[in-house]
Amino acid sequence: MSLEDAKKLAGNAAVDKHVANGMRVGVGSGSTIEFSIQCIANKLITGDLKDINCVCTSYQSTLSCQEHGIPVTTLDDPRVNGHLDVAIDGADEVDANLNLIKGGGGAHTQEKIIASAADQFIVVADERKRSMKLGEKWAIPIEIIPASLNVVLKRLKAAGAEPVLRMAEKKMGPVVTDNGNFIVDANFGIINNPADLECKLNCIPGVVENGLFCNMATVVYFGMLDGSLDMLRK
Amino acid sequence: MSLEDAKKLAGNAAVDKHVANGMRVGVGSGSTIEFSIQCIANKLITGDLKDINCVCTSYQSTLSCQEHGIPVTTLDDPRVNGHLDVAIDGADEVDANLNLIKGGGGAHTQEKIIASAADQFIVVADERKRSMKLGEKWAIPIEIIPASLNVVLKRLKAAGAEPVLRMAEKKMGPVVTDNGNFIVDANFGIINNPADLECKLNCIPGVVENGLFCNMATVVYFGMLDGSLDMLRK
Repeated sequence: MSLEDAKKLAGNAAVDKHVANGMRVGVGSGSTIEFSIQCIANKLITGDLKDINCVCTSYQSTLSCQEHGIPVTTLDDPRVNGHLDVAIDGADEVDANLNLIKGGGGAHTQEKIIASAADQFIVVADERKRSMKLGEKWAIPIEIIPASLNVVLKRLKAAGAEPVLRMAEKKMGPVVTDNGNFIVDANFGIINNPADLECKLNCIPGVVENGLFCNMATVVYFGMLDGSLDMLRK
Repeated sequence: MSLEDAKKLAGNAAVDKHVANGMRVGVGSGSTIEFSIQCIANKLITGDLKDINCVCTSYQSTLSCQEHGIPVTTLDDPRVNGHLDVAIDGADEVDANLNLIKGGGGAHTQEKIIASAADQFIVVADERKRSMKLGEKWAIPIEIIPASLNVVLKRLKAAGAEPVLRMAEKKMGPVVTDNGNFIVDANFGIINNPADLECKLNCIPGVVENGLFCNMATVVYFGMLDGSLDMLRK
């Protein structure tokens, strides 16, 4: 069983179990979600799914859905009106309470907006993303207004983090998000109270949104390297 | 005494009492701040002020400082390094505890970043801006990611507000901020716990920053219509 197979297992499970005809579906970003997108596309071709409208969290997933012939719209579409039946997304780290770190792909602001609009927020990941506590594996991605860089770095250091401006590849200088902002990756070590930190980070002037997603996920599916599917539910 | 005279009284007082040679100065936006900018410019010409570097909160105040020959730089300038000696800014509403509503001019995100970088945050206003409690006169301006409009409107309504997307004049459609975002003006009525609301609003996915400024102002100068200057200090 390869890592790709494990991702596919999780990506397919979310669609099989949570997407039905006529639904408005939030589509996240990342390599595991690509399998969910393929699964939706296949079901639309076979007729196992009908009348689906997807709202995407990034240019990446928009382009991928469009390539696969999946109808894409926005939260402002009157048929959607800011309300999704389900949102499916990946995660970089998942703790035992279904809290997440997201934003490795730089789309966590839109991902959180779309997750917040959905009745059910389904997370898909391979087993490597599982932690007892958040911060074991990942720093927290924080999207910031570019002009606030120095001010935010100081505030994060004062709060005990090691923050690093995320640099781009294939373009010079820092990563610029789909919203035109910067990303700072802030290593806080093990995070004992993620919900508290999530709120505190968003109250630093210059911070647009951070990659902690607390008390949002309904279910997490983990594709295991032994070929099984594991599930976390609150 | 005209309203303009009252604004000038406050705008000048902030510069006279809080700006000294060699300082790095945050310069807010709005009609009262125009008088502070004129005052700084005059003192630079007469030699009463030397070696000032200003960091501006909007295109408006940047252009105004540049027109007046005031040196303008950014928070990332190594001489500034994310730290200002003083920031001077206006306000739309000021309560008895020096909490503010700002953002009538749509620049509150940068204004809060710059205020947070300053040792002293000096507020200038005319007496009409004074309230016992915030919300008596103004709705709260909230800068949001455009794609989140419908989701944020729902969340604000659920929180008891009457939110309205701010529409532009001299361009079609909604106001677009200096950061490329929308502004929603959310009327919450009288606000009994502004610090709590400030934080809660920033934790709504899609919200970039809101116009409540709690526990930030050092001093507020009010230009009174009778020609006197009033001061609030914690």
